[in-house]
Amino acid sequence: MVPRYTRPVMAAIWSPENRYRIWFKIEALACEAMAEYGAVPKEAAKVVREKGDAALAAFSDADLARIDEIEAETRHDVIAFLTWLAEKVGPESRFVHLGMTSSDVLDTCLAVQLVQATDLLLKDLDDVLTALKARAFEHKYTLTIGRSHGIHAEPTSFGLKLAGHYAEFVRNKARLESARAEIATCAISGAVGTYAHLDPRVESYVAERLGLKPEPVSTQVIPRDRHAAYFCTLAVIASGIERLATEVRHLQRSEVREAEEFFHPGQKGSSAMPHKRNPVLTENLTGLARLVRSAAIPALENVALWHERDISHSSVERNICPDATIGLDFALARLSGLISKLLIYPDRMAANIESLGGVVHSGEVLLALARAGLSREDAYRIVQRNAMATWTKLGTPECRTFRENLDADPEISGRIAPDLLDAAMDSRQHLKAIDALYEKVFGEPGPAQ
Amino acid sequence: MVPRYTRPVMAAIWSPENRYRIWFKIEALACEAMAEYGAVPKEAAKVVREKGDAALAAFSDADLARIDEIEAETRHDVIAFLTWLAEKVGPESRFVHLGMTSSDVLDTCLAVQLVQATDLLLKDLDDVLTALKARAFEHKYTLTIGRSHGIHAEPTSFGLKLAGHYAEFVRNKARLESARAEIATCAISGAVGTYAHLDPRVESYVAERLGLKPEPVSTQVIPRDRHAAYFCTLAVIASGIERLATEVRHLQRSEVREAEEFFHPGQKGSSAMPHKRNPVLTENLTGLARLVRSAAIPALENVALWHERDISHSSVERNICPDATIGLDFALARLSGLISKLLIYPDRMAANIESLGGVVHSGEVLLALARAGLSREDAYRIVQRNAMATWTKLGTPECRTFRENLDADPEISGRIAPDLLDAAMDSRQHLKAIDALYEKVFGEPGPAQ
Amino acid sequence: MVPRYTRPVMAAIWSPENRYRIWFKIEALACEAMAEYGAVPKEAAKVVREKGDAALAAFSDADLARIDEIEAETRHDVIAFLTWLAEKVGPESRFVHLGMTSSDVLDTCLAVQLVQATDLLLKDLDDVLTALKARAFEHKYTLTIGRSHGIHAEPTSFGLKLAGHYAEFVRNKARLESARAEIATCAISGAVGTYAHLDPRVESYVAERLGLKPEPVSTQVIPRDRHAAYFCTLAVIASGIERLATEVRHLQRSEVREAEEFFHPGQKGSSAMPHKRNPVLTENLTGLARLVRSAAIPALENVALWHERDISHSSVERNICPDATIGLDFALARLSGLISKLLIYPDRMAANIESLGGVVHSGEVLLALARAGLSREDAYRIVQRNAMATWTKLGTPECRTFRENLDADPEISGRIAPDLLDAAMDSRQHLKAIDALYEKVFGEPGPAQ
Amino acid sequence: MVPRYTRPVMAAIWSPENRYRIWFKIEALACEAMAEYGAVPKEAAKVVREKGDAALAAFSDADLARIDEIEAETRHDVIAFLTWLAEKVGPESRFVHLGMTSSDVLDTCLAVQLVQATDLLLKDLDDVLTALKARAFEHKYTLTIGRSHGIHAEPTSFGLKLAGHYAEFVRNKARLESARAEIATCAISGAVGTYAHLDPRVESYVAERLGLKPEPVSTQVIPRDRHAAYFCTLAVIASGIERLATEVRHLQRSEVREAEEFFHPGQKGSSAMPHKRNPVLTENLTGLARLVRSAAIPALENVALWHERDISHSSVERNICPDATIGLDFALARLSGLISKLLIYPDRMAANIESLGGVVHSGEVLLALARAGLSREDAYRIVQRNAMATWTKLGTPECRTFRENLDADPEISGRIAPDLLDAAMDSRQHLKAIDALYEKVFGEPGPAQ
Repeated sequence: MVPRYTRPVMAAIWSPENRYRIWFKIEALACEAMAEYGAVPKEAAKVVREKGDAALAAFSDADLARIDEIEAETRHDVIAFLTWLAEKVGPESRFVHLGMTSSDVLDTCLAVQLVQATDLLLKDLDDVLTALKARAFEHKYTLTIGRSHGIHAEPTSFGLKLAGHYAEFVRNKARLESARAEIATCAISGAVGTYAHLDPRVESYVAERLGLKPEPVSTQVIPRDRHAAYFCTLAVIASGIERLATEVRHLQRSEVREAEEFFHPGQKGSSAMPHKRNPVLTENLTGLARLVRSAAIPALENVALWHERDISHSSVERNICPDATIGLDFALARLSGLISKLLIYPDRMAANIESLGGVVHSGEVLLALARAGLSREDAYRIVQRNAMATWTKLGTPECRTFRENLDADPEISGRIAPDLLDAAMDSRQHLKAIDALYEKVFGEPGPAQ
Repeated sequence: MVPRYTRPVMAAIWSPENRYRIWFKIEALACEAMAEYGAVPKEAAKVVREKGDAALAAFSDADLARIDEIEAETRHDVIAFLTWLAEKVGPESRFVHLGMTSSDVLDTCLAVQLVQATDLLLKDLDDVLTALKARAFEHKYTLTIGRSHGIHAEPTSFGLKLAGHYAEFVRNKARLESARAEIATCAISGAVGTYAHLDPRVESYVAERLGLKPEPVSTQVIPRDRHAAYFCTLAVIASGIERLATEVRHLQRSEVREAEEFFHPGQKGSSAMPHKRNPVLTENLTGLARLVRSAAIPALENVALWHERDISHSSVERNICPDATIGLDFALARLSGLISKLLIYPDRMAANIESLGGVVHSGEVLLALARAGLSREDAYRIVQRNAMATWTKLGTPECRTFRENLDADPEISGRIAPDLLDAAMDSRQHLKAIDALYEKVFGEPGPAQ
Repeated sequence: MVPRYTRPVMAAIWSPENRYRIWFKIEALACEAMAEYGAVPKEAAKVVREKGDAALAAFSDADLARIDEIEAETRHDVIAFLTWLAEKVGPESRFVHLGMTSSDVLDTCLAVQLVQATDLLLKDLDDVLTALKARAFEHKYTLTIGRSHGIHAEPTSFGLKLAGHYAEFVRNKARLESARAEIATCAISGAVGTYAHLDPRVESYVAERLGLKPEPVSTQVIPRDRHAAYFCTLAVIASGIERLATEVRHLQRSEVREAEEFFHPGQKGSSAMPHKRNPVLTENLTGLARLVRSAAIPALENVALWHERDISHSSVERNICPDATIGLDFALARLSGLISKLLIYPDRMAANIESLGGVVHSGEVLLALARAGLSREDAYRIVQRNAMATWTKLGTPECRTFRENLDADPEISGRIAPDLLDAAMDSRQHLKAIDALYEKVFGEPGPAQ
Repeated sequence: MVPRYTRPVMAAIWSPENRYRIWFKIEALACEAMAEYGAVPKEAAKVVREKGDAALAAFSDADLARIDEIEAETRHDVIAFLTWLAEKVGPESRFVHLGMTSSDVLDTCLAVQLVQATDLLLKDLDDVLTALKARAFEHKYTLTIGRSHGIHAEPTSFGLKLAGHYAEFVRNKARLESARAEIATCAISGAVGTYAHLDPRVESYVAERLGLKPEPVSTQVIPRDRHAAYFCTLAVIASGIERLATEVRHLQRSEVREAEEFFHPGQKGSSAMPHKRNPVLTENLTGLARLVRSAAIPALENVALWHERDISHSSVERNICPDATIGLDFALARLSGLISKLLIYPDRMAANIESLGGVVHSGEVLLALARAGLSREDAYRIVQRNAMATWTKLGTPECRTFRENLDADPEISGRIAPDLLDAAMDSRQHLKAIDALYEKVFGEPGPAQ
């Protein structure tokens, strides 16, 4: 992920330094566990822990360079690290990594990094939820037109729109929590996962201290269906971001102008057109959603490794693990800020509801006529005819409102009381279940009017 | 592809009957070629041709059932067909398929079917191009607002919008012609492509008569990079359909209403809301684009077959070959009809240009001020200030037009002649290169005004 | 999905008839609920139920044709169905669909169909689990070589290989159960989800009787993040099928021959090469996995519908819902049969373990030397040198086994007792944790030896 | 793309410095063109050119920092650059970017960068082709078993295998040349592409000097179907790399051992198993193929920008442009080295051909029996029976070769001369068309034997 879309807090998780710290933590814990179960002298494990801790505490660019140098020779990253560690720890280093295979370290480390990244993403989701809830409560009674197919349908509450996205992000949080459990496993099982050279209790010991669960069957690697499920979950969340971003982009359209991204003082929308105020943040989120989503397919293609493992997943994961988590973290952080600062224009919403001459009430008028005794087919025909008469003349001098047309229609005349038509055309009817809806979404009805 | 989105003319290409006809054509041509080059008695080839032609001419559901019956036993589709053919041809059938492998028939047949499908798609593209050109010529001088980020930018010509899509579909046609060449190859090379049991001239003979080129190296199969490139091309075309569909969906939005899909008499937009006229065709095209595009990844995954071939591509292609070509054919046919019948509202376009109080001319005003001697930075600042003053008050009583604000601005006062501002705010300036643009796209300037 | 890969039981779920039955069930339940809550005469709801039930019981191709005929006119499928229903129910039909919108029926119906499909898939997964467990128990003690990178690593148990896939399918089942909960929701909330024309209790009534949960916020449609998560789950399962299929394909390779798909009497592997016995079922599963996976991206692209909904998801779902569930059902059914009948060759596995002259024990020899006091670096160097000496001469007369090389190495001589080397080169050490591993996977240790 | 898979020569193309250099080149050329056509004083254009050239020649990290600083305020990258440039150029800077829009610079720059990247990739493809041709010529007569479904089929030439990949890479080169033409276009057409503030000749002037073609219709942006087609092409090439990588991985399997990646002195294959020599380079290429391929879908999703443009494509392209070209460049460079140094084992290939007791000749034996007068059905039955008799007893003491079984079969006895069977079982028959095949692929028959 390019720096422009990277927050340092997430980038740090994927730094070589963090990786080496986790590698050491795993090796040191494993060594302690082996000492615990008699495979290694306790004193040796202590030396490993102490000298290793000191080396990591003093870890610098010189150490990074030294490890790179060894890897250039051995062409194996874990062996390079272990060799560097041996230089720091001394002879006791021969008790490090005993009976383990590189993937025991690599895959368990990846689990730790993904858990760290996920915890950050969960925090991001909380921020999005907080922002959505606040604005949903603020606009619980703000009437706005609901649109299907981009066409005015019936009025709704702007707060309810946000509540719908809130409900989706609640689902996304639950999905991410499941995904976290998917990847939070530990493998210390040796070359092909048989524990031939290792006590299985070592794995349990390390797992527990790292907050992971032991993997049931790790055939050298932790099986990649876990990671596939994880990246698919990120893709679903990214698509939810895209949905909300698309909503804002629509609302900011010049003809709609119901909401607008905050426009910074000094900001320039266009080098050529000084009048421009563009929804660039939400367009950016739309693009980021595509990027995060693009990790799903390679993650799925990684599942079918050959036999006990092949290493084709590695180059994929070296990229998509940081890219997708950094991209999603940035997008969620941007999203919560965006929602908090979103400029919302209730007057404009009210004006848009009225802009089609009242035809948006055709549904309730249809029901009112049906209740008044017309057949559904007749009522539909009459309502459609009068709505279209308004619709097709909008903006022309001869345009009459939907109500005017209804009042003048001989087929209706005398068949329904005017106050029933008034009620049918009252936007506030669409708020009547709003308490119940908020209760369903937020567990509380929200503010009273 | 479900019947709802299937045109019979494309479905017929993928029928079992068409497949068997092509299989026989390949076998008969190969047999003739072998006779030509001495591997088979000429008389036998003649019998195969005559009795086979007769059997295919009389082909009925009973034959389909018979072939299925044999396949249930042999579990091999080509052997089932050859066995059926032997029942029809008699003893000379032993000269059929001599030294050939099933894939020689299957892959060459697939090439013929894809060529047939592509020729239909090319015709569909011609229809789209014809429709786009007609409407582009019709609306060459129809001013409409150009939008970037969904925000009004500067006026443009509605015809030019369509010309841009025309140019994209010209490219799509060229891409599809290249894709046709990619898949129009013939393989009759035997078990692993060494011509060990076959004269290579048989392949050339069959290829020429089928309008194909001999495959340079077919290792039992025609290499699947060809098909991957083909389906990627369909995906690019589908995305172009989505772009145009998205444009129409935007133009039909209730707040925009610059264009509208034809609404059939008797059509009902919604069961609940009789006033609805929804852009359902273009939304449908948007979905179909996703479907066609979804064939690209499995086609790419098909490339890396094992060694000389494995058959994992087969189940993929049995689905995506009909699905993607049928889906694209349907979408293109729908698209050309849609464009031809699209309701276009120039008055509404004119009204929308004016709806932001003239700020859409900020770019040319900026240049005019710069030409009048202001620094770019000053000019930008002044123009932005006055545009925003209009923009942020739109729809309120105190809103003044951009021109009113400019005229009242002391920083401008006296620094630019009013007629230069008039010129800068004349939408017709955006048509001044329209002849040249049409010339680039259509090879002719289009109608004079 | 083409008929070749379609099981009737799953296809029936996606038939128009099943759809219409569910539509009626939803309308009838909603009508009853409205009667319950006073919006509709109880008698009317009874008539709707009785006449509707009778109509559906007698449903025939003529009814299908009649509905198609009405849709051709109205261009709206739900209205067409309701009109047909009105013809059957009579005047009381005006109480059907009251205050509802088409999507209330369509989306709730889709939920029911997806639940039906998922229940079938869960049953399929059970069959796969049963088959895997049986063969895993059968081969708990069958030694086979574990391979990383396609290269012999260390011995393992063939049963453990299967246990690893079993563990993955246990995860897949849990994922599918979650995915079932994702899509098992009901929406009866009206045009834009405000319950403006409906009592929210209608939704709860219908949901409960259909085994669904009411959707928190349905903005005309059930939000598509649910379906995206669902299809991503199918994609993960498909990838697990691919992993197991790839394993079998590898094991059946001519050079490996450790397992083989059952070869039917009468089956022909190739039209040109009578000796062929090909792993066509697992290759087919590999292709089907690509197909099922290809539904994930369009499902994700469906999430960001415009505003309260657009209908672009519809054409996608009309295809991917049947295609992906039918494809996965077929693949899982094929997979369980395949595993049950898989021919497994323990002798060949034993021979392959030995085929590299014993170098596969290099890991334990390394540890034994380290335990004997050599530094890890020295031990690694010595073991690598002797293993390579064997490896690079395999198949030549001068090739000595790894043990012979070790015994002749002066750097080892006298530093380790021969019986320790014997123990280090005993394949049975890789079974020592097998009970514990089976316990983790199956919750029981499996058969004793 | 992580540094591990990045070659500096490709990374440099995507550096900010290269971008700014190209931006200035475009602005300076445009300014010159405007001077040429009278819109700008010639002297001013000269000052812009000279002072700008000097500023770029002295470009340092301080300049990067200054541009970033301005962007932090303006939130617009092109305006930030122009402001920096104005600081360097002085008052004449007001003639820079006159009538242009940011995308004129951004999109034309992207075209230049993609052309630079593509030229590097074309060079990489040449290296792959050179390496493949050399090894194909070297092994023109090396017999090896052809495999379909992973099962031995018939012998072929190892050189021919490589020739097949060569032919695919020839196609890939042609595709990349087409893709280069796709993206090599220039847009200098103003805010919404109408040339309202610009002479169209400016675009032509700049395009010609940058080696680009003017875009027919650029609606602020160069249309993204071009980039979609480009990234799809990279995806096809990546899949071709995967196919060749998969072949090598198979050949290096422990049971096959027909070829092997070069193993560096000092290299360690595994931290736990010193005997390992793993095909890690080709596994890496397999993963890189997945990564490069993953750019195709977001690039396709970028096509349907809203109206004249939205900026959602930007974040996608900031990542996939460098990632996919850097990844593909690295993969191709690795691939050509890999092929050149590939260890190839003809003896092992010969041994594998023989390892199935001669059944791999069943196809030609079938034909020989047919030529001797047996019906195809009888011949198939007899050959299959005898081949299976060998196959199913492989590795057991009672196993007889296919020839022994044939000789003992009473149904054959006396019906075919032994020398015809000898000929049918001679692997060299599979080389008889090799000259013709090489002629087709390389345009020359290759070395004589």
